[in-house]
Amino acid sequence: MTGTAPTDAGRVLAEALFAALRRDGDDGVGITRDSYGAGESAALDLIERTARAEGLEAARDAAANLMVTLPGSDPDLPALACGSHLDSVPQGGNYDGAAGVIAGLLALIRLRREGVALRRTLRLYGLRGEESAAFGRAYVGSSALFGQLTAEDLALPHAVTGRSLRDCLAGAGAAIARIEGRERLLDPASLAGWIELHIEQGPVLVARNRPVAIVTGIRGNLRHRVVTCTGEAGHSGAVPRWLRRDAVFAVAALLHRLDAHWQVLLGQGHDLVVTAGVLGTDPAEHAIARIPGTLRFSFEVRSQAQATLDAFHALFLEECRLIEEERGVRFAMERRIDTVPAVMDTALVERLRTLVRRLGLPEELMASGAGHDAAVFANNGVPSAMIFVRNANGSHNPREAMAMEDFMAGAEVLRLALIEGAA
Amino acid sequence: MTGTAPTDAGRVLAEALFAALRRDGDDGVGITRDSYGAGESAALDLIERTARAEGLEAARDAAANLMVTLPGSDPDLPALACGSHLDSVPQGGNYDGAAGVIAGLLALIRLRREGVALRRTLRLYGLRGEESAAFGRAYVGSSALFGQLTAEDLALPHAVTGRSLRDCLAGAGAAIARIEGRERLLDPASLAGWIELHIEQGPVLVARNRPVAIVTGIRGNLRHRVVTCTGEAGHSGAVPRWLRRDAVFAVAALLHRLDAHWQVLLGQGHDLVVTAGVLGTDPAEHAIARIPGTLRFSFEVRSQAQATLDAFHALFLEECRLIEEERGVRFAMERRIDTVPAVMDTALVERLRTLVRRLGLPEELMASGAGHDAAVFANNGVPSAMIFVRNANGSHNPREAMAMEDFMAGAEVLRLALIEGAA
Repeated sequence: MTGTAPTDAGRVLAEALFAALRRDGDDGVGITRDSYGAGESAALDLIERTARAEGLEAARDAAANLMVTLPGSDPDLPALACGSHLDSVPQGGNYDGAAGVIAGLLALIRLRREGVALRRTLRLYGLRGEESAAFGRAYVGSSALFGQLTAEDLALPHAVTGRSLRDCLAGAGAAIARIEGRERLLDPASLAGWIELHIEQGPVLVARNRPVAIVTGIRGNLRHRVVTCTGEAGHSGAVPRWLRRDAVFAVAALLHRLDAHWQVLLGQGHDLVVTAGVLGTDPAEHAIARIPGTLRFSFEVRSQAQATLDAFHALFLEECRLIEEERGVRFAMERRIDTVPAVMDTALVERLRTLVRRLGLPEELMASGAGHDAAVFANNGVPSAMIFVRNANGSHNPREAMAMEDFMAGAEVLRLALIEGAA
Repeated sequence: MTGTAPTDAGRVLAEALFAALRRDGDDGVGITRDSYGAGESAALDLIERTARAEGLEAARDAAANLMVTLPGSDPDLPALACGSHLDSVPQGGNYDGAAGVIAGLLALIRLRREGVALRRTLRLYGLRGEESAAFGRAYVGSSALFGQLTAEDLALPHAVTGRSLRDCLAGAGAAIARIEGRERLLDPASLAGWIELHIEQGPVLVARNRPVAIVTGIRGNLRHRVVTCTGEAGHSGAVPRWLRRDAVFAVAALLHRLDAHWQVLLGQGHDLVVTAGVLGTDPAEHAIARIPGTLRFSFEVRSQAQATLDAFHALFLEECRLIEEERGVRFAMERRIDTVPAVMDTALVERLRTLVRRLGLPEELMASGAGHDAAVFANNGVPSAMIFVRNANGSHNPREAMAMEDFMAGAEVLRLALIEGAA
């Protein structure tokens, strides 16, 4: 790399690694790096080989994740960790997950080459099974580290092969008996922090024209998978308004009011998104000339704050009750399912904000709507933070688009944060 | 019938006729009197036999409908007509249609027995093919009389047998060449009026506790069979409100505003019902955690007044346009389909109201939401009116429920109206 500036060298290496991952993962449509399968393993191998070639220590942990280490001068201090996942959804994109691992690897390689003196050990994780699309249980690799895989989780069959998650973990070399015993393979106290770089999976940074953002929290969510509004069917011409119990107009009124509450809460500074993604009248009985007697819909609320989720849920129930009275309908809900939010570490977030400013980048704070391994680390007590890199066209599809300039900006924030945190 | 009061005799006869129709039409689940089929023909035969036995003239007209006549003293005067249809939907009820024919028959029988002197001829129609469920073209029997069946109509195949409507009409004895020639088999000027008694097919008279109502008009309607709202799909967690183009919230806002307009128009005295009977997100792409990018719905407006239909349609288009601007969605509509309203004759309606009051019945005016042969007569220039009889559980199902007391009250209004109109 003589004659090449460090950042240029980093970019060349990053481009080579992304290209190699793309070659290995190409499924003809997009990228497939199957969790606990050959695709994911090939990605771990590539990162491991590259790390070793640069003189870094590399090993698999007891959950079969890749761990690359740059030892610090004081081995008694908790290590500072970074990384992300190396698996992908089927026919997904090349950057989702891999960007965070490659950014961490660039940092460790450069710090080692430059011989920067650090007290803390730096550790890069190439995690497995974050998507776990074939099993329907996300964050497997990080959850395994904290003893959080249940017997039910481990029994989940692979959607295609039918092989259990347990057997797939064991096949990848994980210490399955310890995982089944719910042992904490990684002591949260052994880590000073977790910093995860990841592409943004939403459109905010493109819309705001920002290369990177610092994540303030990972939204939790609250769901009723199915809410049923029951009114009364009837001839659309023969029943006047005052005798109608129209399920569609009732749900329209409900959503309209929830939309108004949503706007108010945003105005008050709360973090909130509300979605009724699946909604429909009953094909077995609906007709153009029939007052709809039934409407089913899914209801999902996401927020960084559990209090906001709870408050909005209370509003939802209250508005359902009012509309029942006003319109003679009934709402019935499947049980509430909760995924708790993860709060990012305030000090770490502040440190990243300062670095963004110092690099002359525009400052942007945002919540993560999608879940990440960082939520698992944070909810196990590891001070955590995330750097989002601008990405067009969302994720989980081959059209992901991340500019290398943006990636290098995010990677530089990560590198400086590792130096500051480990010095 | 010696020793029996005329109304008792009428009720006994009506009950016997309803019972006979029920026996003949019983399909194991409900009543089937198939249009231009054996069931409908049996009903015509029953009414014809009963009329002849009472010394009334009975014949089939050129469209194969039944025509029962009580000649007046002045044959040059236009006749006054009454009646309804004798067919039913499959697995329907016993009163839909037949009630109007039996009520007319009771009137003609009693007037003949009592020798009431009338100048105008009275004519009772037992119409065929009002439902025509198997052909999908309603009001066949009355439309044929006015030369309104098109070649397209006549080519419609029976849903089960595949036999064309043309062949079915011919088989029932209709003068098919004249019908194909779009000849007016019945000169509207030959009729002084058309009075049709029918069960109410909605819940208003039950809710209002009224035995009968006088119909002020038959609602027309305006439809877009499919309206598509297109926004943009996206990850439900990763896209904040300001970047969303959520098709479900957009349509909820639209329906909410149309509901508000509807209420205002009702308050201003307009007749209006609005229905989105079929509505749903796209099963090929919807998911709980996905912002709905598409929502399709049917849109139907009904009113007695074409001006109200047009005004509400203009509001609909305007609100769609506003919501497109506000929410970044697009609305696309299949073509508008219109069915024009039918106005009942003001003088005839007033006469019926006066008779209702004279009989000591509570007065009730209402629009008909369902279509009727009366709309065909009215729109061909025959002064028309309808008497609705209370009926529970709607129609087109075996659970129709009409009390004989209510039927006899309606039949008495019809009888007096025929005397007044023919005197």
